[in-house]
Amino acid sequence: MTSHQFHSPATPDLDAPRYAEIATFLRAPLATDLRDVDLGLVGIPYDGGLTNRSGARHGPREVRNQSSLTRKYHHVSRTNPFDLCRIADLGDVPMTRALSVEGAHDDISAFYDLVHAAKIIPLSVGGDHSVTYPIFRSIARERKIGMVHIDAHMDLWDEFQGSKFSHGSPFRRAIEDGLLDPKRVVQIGIRGAQNNKSGWQYAEDHGVTVIFIEEVNEIGVEKVLEKARAVVGEGEAYLSFDIDSVDPVFAPGTGTPEIGGITTIQAQALIRGLDGLNLIGADLVEISPPFDQTGGTSLVGASLLYEIACILSNGIAKRKCALNDLMQTAS
Amino acid sequence: MTSHQFHSPATPDLDAPRYAEIATFLRAPLATDLRDVDLGLVGIPYDGGLTNRSGARHGPREVRNQSSLTRKYHHVSRTNPFDLCRIADLGDVPMTRALSVEGAHDDISAFYDLVHAAKIIPLSVGGDHSVTYPIFRSIARERKIGMVHIDAHMDLWDEFQGSKFSHGSPFRRAIEDGLLDPKRVVQIGIRGAQNNKSGWQYAEDHGVTVIFIEEVNEIGVEKVLEKARAVVGEGEAYLSFDIDSVDPVFAPGTGTPEIGGITTIQAQALIRGLDGLNLIGADLVEISPPFDQTGGTSLVGASLLYEIACILSNGIAKRKCALNDLMQTAS
Amino acid sequence: MTSHQFHSPATPDLDAPRYAEIATFLRAPLATDLRDVDLGLVGIPYDGGLTNRSGARHGPREVRNQSSLTRKYHHVSRTNPFDLCRIADLGDVPMTRALSVEGAHDDISAFYDLVHAAKIIPLSVGGDHSVTYPIFRSIARERKIGMVHIDAHMDLWDEFQGSKFSHGSPFRRAIEDGLLDPKRVVQIGIRGAQNNKSGWQYAEDHGVTVIFIEEVNEIGVEKVLEKARAVVGEGEAYLSFDIDSVDPVFAPGTGTPEIGGITTIQAQALIRGLDGLNLIGADLVEISPPFDQTGGTSLVGASLLYEIACILSNGIAKRKCALNDLMQTAS
Amino acid sequence: MTSHQFHSPATPDLDAPRYAEIATFLRAPLATDLRDVDLGLVGIPYDGGLTNRSGARHGPREVRNQSSLTRKYHHVSRTNPFDLCRIADLGDVPMTRALSVEGAHDDISAFYDLVHAAKIIPLSVGGDHSVTYPIFRSIARERKIGMVHIDAHMDLWDEFQGSKFSHGSPFRRAIEDGLLDPKRVVQIGIRGAQNNKSGWQYAEDHGVTVIFIEEVNEIGVEKVLEKARAVVGEGEAYLSFDIDSVDPVFAPGTGTPEIGGITTIQAQALIRGLDGLNLIGADLVEISPPFDQTGGTSLVGASLLYEIACILSNGIAKRKCALNDLMQTAS
Amino acid sequence: MTSHQFHSPATPDLDAPRYAEIATFLRAPLATDLRDVDLGLVGIPYDGGLTNRSGARHGPREVRNQSSLTRKYHHVSRTNPFDLCRIADLGDVPMTRALSVEGAHDDISAFYDLVHAAKIIPLSVGGDHSVTYPIFRSIARERKIGMVHIDAHMDLWDEFQGSKFSHGSPFRRAIEDGLLDPKRVVQIGIRGAQNNKSGWQYAEDHGVTVIFIEEVNEIGVEKVLEKARAVVGEGEAYLSFDIDSVDPVFAPGTGTPEIGGITTIQAQALIRGLDGLNLIGADLVEISPPFDQTGGTSLVGASLLYEIACILSNGIAKRKCALNDLMQTAS
Amino acid sequence: MTSHQFHSPATPDLDAPRYAEIATFLRAPLATDLRDVDLGLVGIPYDGGLTNRSGARHGPREVRNQSSLTRKYHHVSRTNPFDLCRIADLGDVPMTRALSVEGAHDDISAFYDLVHAAKIIPLSVGGDHSVTYPIFRSIARERKIGMVHIDAHMDLWDEFQGSKFSHGSPFRRAIEDGLLDPKRVVQIGIRGAQNNKSGWQYAEDHGVTVIFIEEVNEIGVEKVLEKARAVVGEGEAYLSFDIDSVDPVFAPGTGTPEIGGITTIQAQALIRGLDGLNLIGADLVEISPPFDQTGGTSLVGASLLYEIACILSNGIAKRKCALNDLMQTAS
Repeated sequence: MTSHQFHSPATPDLDAPRYAEIATFLRAPLATDLRDVDLGLVGIPYDGGLTNRSGARHGPREVRNQSSLTRKYHHVSRTNPFDLCRIADLGDVPMTRALSVEGAHDDISAFYDLVHAAKIIPLSVGGDHSVTYPIFRSIARERKIGMVHIDAHMDLWDEFQGSKFSHGSPFRRAIEDGLLDPKRVVQIGIRGAQNNKSGWQYAEDHGVTVIFIEEVNEIGVEKVLEKARAVVGEGEAYLSFDIDSVDPVFAPGTGTPEIGGITTIQAQALIRGLDGLNLIGADLVEISPPFDQTGGTSLVGASLLYEIACILSNGIAKRKCALNDLMQTAS
Repeated sequence: MTSHQFHSPATPDLDAPRYAEIATFLRAPLATDLRDVDLGLVGIPYDGGLTNRSGARHGPREVRNQSSLTRKYHHVSRTNPFDLCRIADLGDVPMTRALSVEGAHDDISAFYDLVHAAKIIPLSVGGDHSVTYPIFRSIARERKIGMVHIDAHMDLWDEFQGSKFSHGSPFRRAIEDGLLDPKRVVQIGIRGAQNNKSGWQYAEDHGVTVIFIEEVNEIGVEKVLEKARAVVGEGEAYLSFDIDSVDPVFAPGTGTPEIGGITTIQAQALIRGLDGLNLIGADLVEISPPFDQTGGTSLVGASLLYEIACILSNGIAKRKCALNDLMQTAS
Repeated sequence: MTSHQFHSPATPDLDAPRYAEIATFLRAPLATDLRDVDLGLVGIPYDGGLTNRSGARHGPREVRNQSSLTRKYHHVSRTNPFDLCRIADLGDVPMTRALSVEGAHDDISAFYDLVHAAKIIPLSVGGDHSVTYPIFRSIARERKIGMVHIDAHMDLWDEFQGSKFSHGSPFRRAIEDGLLDPKRVVQIGIRGAQNNKSGWQYAEDHGVTVIFIEEVNEIGVEKVLEKARAVVGEGEAYLSFDIDSVDPVFAPGTGTPEIGGITTIQAQALIRGLDGLNLIGADLVEISPPFDQTGGTSLVGASLLYEIACILSNGIAKRKCALNDLMQTAS
Repeated sequence: MTSHQFHSPATPDLDAPRYAEIATFLRAPLATDLRDVDLGLVGIPYDGGLTNRSGARHGPREVRNQSSLTRKYHHVSRTNPFDLCRIADLGDVPMTRALSVEGAHDDISAFYDLVHAAKIIPLSVGGDHSVTYPIFRSIARERKIGMVHIDAHMDLWDEFQGSKFSHGSPFRRAIEDGLLDPKRVVQIGIRGAQNNKSGWQYAEDHGVTVIFIEEVNEIGVEKVLEKARAVVGEGEAYLSFDIDSVDPVFAPGTGTPEIGGITTIQAQALIRGLDGLNLIGADLVEISPPFDQTGGTSLVGASLLYEIACILSNGIAKRKCALNDLMQTAS
Repeated sequence: MTSHQFHSPATPDLDAPRYAEIATFLRAPLATDLRDVDLGLVGIPYDGGLTNRSGARHGPREVRNQSSLTRKYHHVSRTNPFDLCRIADLGDVPMTRALSVEGAHDDISAFYDLVHAAKIIPLSVGGDHSVTYPIFRSIARERKIGMVHIDAHMDLWDEFQGSKFSHGSPFRRAIEDGLLDPKRVVQIGIRGAQNNKSGWQYAEDHGVTVIFIEEVNEIGVEKVLEKARAVVGEGEAYLSFDIDSVDPVFAPGTGTPEIGGITTIQAQALIRGLDGLNLIGADLVEISPPFDQTGGTSLVGASLLYEIACILSNGIAKRKCALNDLMQTAS
Repeated sequence: MTSHQFHSPATPDLDAPRYAEIATFLRAPLATDLRDVDLGLVGIPYDGGLTNRSGARHGPREVRNQSSLTRKYHHVSRTNPFDLCRIADLGDVPMTRALSVEGAHDDISAFYDLVHAAKIIPLSVGGDHSVTYPIFRSIARERKIGMVHIDAHMDLWDEFQGSKFSHGSPFRRAIEDGLLDPKRVVQIGIRGAQNNKSGWQYAEDHGVTVIFIEEVNEIGVEKVLEKARAVVGEGEAYLSFDIDSVDPVFAPGTGTPEIGGITTIQAQALIRGLDGLNLIGADLVEISPPFDQTGGTSLVGASLLYEIACILSNGIAKRKCALNDLMQTAS
């Protein structure tokens, strides 16, 4: 207040005490326009695709709340994502048909069409995992993409309770629609019993690479990353991080917890190790605050969101440099 | 998304699902400028004046979070405060000296000087009760004001732990500084044992009207309101609502809970009954989210904030009308 | 174990320690057949009609869990509902289309068709309030019924997010379909702000009797009951009890809490006072265990379920007596 | 620390910040000897007599913890119990046979024999309600006493699970042993269904006065107190306060919660209204911290403990005065 | 509901949504008779043997509740225990003398006599660890058995508070009674300070193999399993799994937590590695729901219960095959 | 109670049930005098130096509460610290100026002057990390000391919000004052983003050895300990353990949690590995009970306090032996 002037709360001060200020993702400013944004943080407060415990609709709210912890410089890379590109919180996807899975998915696609048209890299916070499918309908429609999928579940079910659009089916739908190239998909951390073997079978039949949790712990994160990079390659790809990949002791606030998952240290190492992939977007889904009494799951979520923002920012900065170089060469 | 255009998240949509959108007080828009605001909602994330349990610094964040419930039309008055005047969330008071009570109080006064200069009626959310004193230093400096003070405690201590500025002293300081007229102060809901009798004595010596909880329950809310209106009169006055006035079963999330308090129905009736007083500001303090595991205290807080906003908006609208009438008469 | 013989856990022993045994509603036996049941306790684990906080799908599970407290003889009436009629837990409605509101409602109607055909009085535990509409489609299809509706909300919205079947609309739909006679509907405990006035208007236009919470507290439970009995009359009627009618301090575990509600003592008195009405069914809805960390809401729910079971059992017993008398007279 | 000298933590400073210092009952000093104590605060960490939910063994610990709130001067009486008599925390009853109800009861009696021999008025914190019986074996063995019993339950069962000493039986045992005069017993706040009618019958048969919760709310606290004083009379009496008398919304942390109980305001009024009875001891039982996530039940317990200490101190002071007068007259 | 017929809730549908249906262990059907069961899931709601924090009596209820997660096919073995043998939930042991350790143990033995007579392999859920002793009295009375004991504590105390039957003594008693062969007992995960060295001494004196947590982490799970198999050999053996073996971060809901325990991944690997042992029963004990606010401990318990059920089912299936082979050969 | 004599509760019985008795650190006796103490356990209920989440003022209270678990003999060393030296709980630092950081620090120094003069080794429980600075002003004033600092943060900031004494600055102040030798300081477990790089720079400029969490996990605890011992050497040193070094899944109850920390097994190994260093004191800070709903953080704290007490006791015993040897040689 030295200048005694009013500063809009829509742009939080990263140096203010952490419990202060309006809660935004990573304490990023709220966007007023899509034109000035490179990396767009988006909330998707939708959980109508859940098949088990409720509450992922409350995820964006609490990840913003726990984003208080966010600071600028990463202690390993010593870089600041806010220096590398323009980051903004785009708010939540406006919902107009939240009581219908198909309607909600259309709402989501409509919003990501705008984001995609504005050439913004989206980093989304769910909501249940069904939301990745309508995101893909917007951002992957021009060509098939690859995916690093960190999750306890394969999400390759055909249908549940008569619906093809639950949170157990997004990647089966995306493969069927030609949005996702199964040969360039790697699933990491998969585990847990199943009521039937169809998901396992589908992955095998379509060439999806599955690294079960037992393998993760046997070969270690470095080898997992090597394998993942080999599968995904240099083409455009997406990172979909389901919080239930992380062991429920770190992330109890989720709809379908499975014991025996990865640690947060493994999660951090996995994300950091994906730096350099050609990522065109990412999401973090399935955080269910009502089952997260201490806020710890959302804190893990906010911390991993920062890690993902760091690698996405690096990618954006590199592409900008490359473009600049190209333009300078051209001129 | 029918129009497929981007709408800034700084202005939440009151018709969106309640768990969606950026959390602001009463889902009001974030201010970008002080000129277009009649009623300013302000957070004061400061609790360095606490003498007992910690955490009121986290109050503004959670009251914003629980403001999801807010809707427009009051079911008794059938009026909508957003129709009556321009309401905005001004964000949190920027703190620059949060580790010193005196420094923090200066930060608070500096911000309220701006608010007061902009002729905004402030409705503040604490923070501990010490913050009312620096608010008064800004908004009551021209003349003594009256006060309706709803609280379990009188806050008339002289000092605590060598400090004159704890949350137990704001009104003694304000009376000493000539900001508050003790004869026009009524305290409602007071209760609880004391380590010495000095607070009780000070009230008696200076003519403060104290309505202990036993009297509230004996004579009923209507009579309490009559008494309060008689004490405060028609002059400018302030409403200071300490959440610990409410019984800890409704409001466990507070620093100095005292069993045997008012109910939320009594709290609603008390606030509604103050409609018509000449209020120049109000605050709601001492909500401590770390002691409020269910969020219930903040929900009570957000709901009472709405009730207070309704009576303040009525007052603003009436004064505008009166001014318009005066100007029409004059022209 | 005196007889050293195996006793099926499907029939809990009401004299066993309360923390023991399989959790069923009111510790009633699990039904094996619909033919031997007068009063059927049914769970409806569906919450796809929610518009606010999530979790009512988990309601039946936790009400069964908290039913441990249930005992036989009511301390006021000194009667035992298990003596008056045959009570069984019918389990949960089997869901086959849980991701679609319309599909789920059809699942519910299909189950209640069976229950209705078996001449069982259903006492249901939700689930969100949208479930009452498909229940009515089964049990009220032959003629319009009356209703005592205890709730914070009128549930008379037209639509929300493009759907006509959310938990805000069941009674508007039921009136439109001719299942419910608005002139014989009384709503008790209504409160809370609204985003528009259409619900209040609809009630007025159609002759629904609304007793707002302010009136409840002004005239008292006895007068409310008189009024309710006058509205509902002697025809067939239904009791729909939304847990959010009760103040959120007693019932935090609900999706749309509104402060300033009725107490559990008022709730008990209201239910007891409905004894003698010609009730053909009842439900208790909107308990959301994820927001009920202590289990207190479900305990309140289980306790009120017992109160409702008592009055329904009385009604069943009276009708049986009347029938017996009639048959004896005839023979 | 002005004097820079060491002060033993066994004697907490009542003026220190409330979160500081060793936790003792009412922040009273720990006794080093029984000779200098008039009013002895005792913990009984025993819950082997429970028939329902566990955890009362943890009661004394948490009531001490929540005793932080305790201050000296009562806001209604303006007296300070620490001025009226010598109060000390005697610690917990040393248990040597905690896995046997009979053994534990003998441990308890052995300790109260010491307390009784030292002419200390005991104010005990349970533990389950079974502990009152062995207390009576020590302090009531010379003659039958009367009792004000505030509780949801009558505790007049004959046996449970083959034992005659559960928390459902203490007063039946005490009446049988001639320790308690049923004609001078009043039970206040009784409610809740029962598996059989034997408790109600026993009270009726033996002349115990039972004021059910419905009557409490119908006639009001003042009339209840008149009735209680008439029943108990001027002879020696005991106050046994079961926390489950209070509504579970105020006191969820208890083993056998019953909705629809008294409020804390009623509890305070009931205790204050017993001032003047000839009380030779009191207890507060059935606080179960594991079911009290917020600590609110223990806070209510500590606050009521202070209220009870106030009336016991008054009684002690009066008897001392009377004795002094007598001795002066005699000399 | 396609067939529109009533299906008894006593047999949950494993394909129903997980939050639906009556809560049984592993969603197994409730037994109606002991004749059709190979693997019997039994709850023992008894915790009178506890020496520290309360609540294990509530364990069976919550493990059933969290068994919602259970599905059929194991993701590593790809087998379904429900295909391998007949699994049923036998309910809870009926208690008739729950207030006496000796009485309760007799109740337990009486029930397991029935189970043993029916040639059912029992998989039990405690309850405190004292319950294993009366189980052994029923199922090990014909000959000494071996044991894999996974626990933080050795449970080899002689007595506590004058009782020889607390949860600290079961295996000392079983060795003394000749039910357990100490040379064929291996204890895994032991840790934590002790008030005296007698337990350590007893193990050494009697040839019990103890693998402290430090050794587990030094040599790894595979070597631990080798060692365990060598100790237990091919004879009949029992698996007793105390949830406090697992680190309290995964399993806070237990009576005597000790930091620095095994992870759930280690627990899964340990159980899976015991496949092939000649197990005649198993138990999972010491889950205390009141100290498990999130339900996470019970979720870990339910998940490990599934793992144990898988290896027990494998054993049953193999023995059946062997028996069939033998019978075919004989015929 | 066999002797039927009164035993002061100020000296808890370590063999009593764990939920019983007055809560003191490690169940040690309360000191009555500083002369008979070798190892002094001290609470510092101060958190005015916090910059983020509140509540460390409540730390000493809850660590005492969770000290119930404490027992005597360590399962690895098989030694009992209470045998090695005289341990007492000295109570909390008396605070007289708790609302001023400088005043509070003076209060703390005044108390540690007494402790230091009495030649007591202090083992302190915070409070926030700012308290280590005033401790150093008392116990390190004669010469520079070394330090093993286990923490997520370096605490080497210059100032925050205009204050040089927050919990982010103690070691910068101590180095500036010549109390701490930066060359003999090792920081273990450091991680997390920063708003500027000044802390990292300061460490580098002054020769502080920093072992980031990534290095801890790469080289393992044994190598970390080698490195630490090499840095600290044989001179006098201090152990400062910030609970936020431990991963927030084990220790959520802290003000500035950082995911990806050390495990409790690593923490135990680190502390045990410091045995033999010339430690003149230690502290455990930043436990914030309001953010520790399950008490798990305080349980970890109490357990680590025991580990630290063990190595400090060993050191004391060795020095006593050496002194005795010296005196015997001299005599």
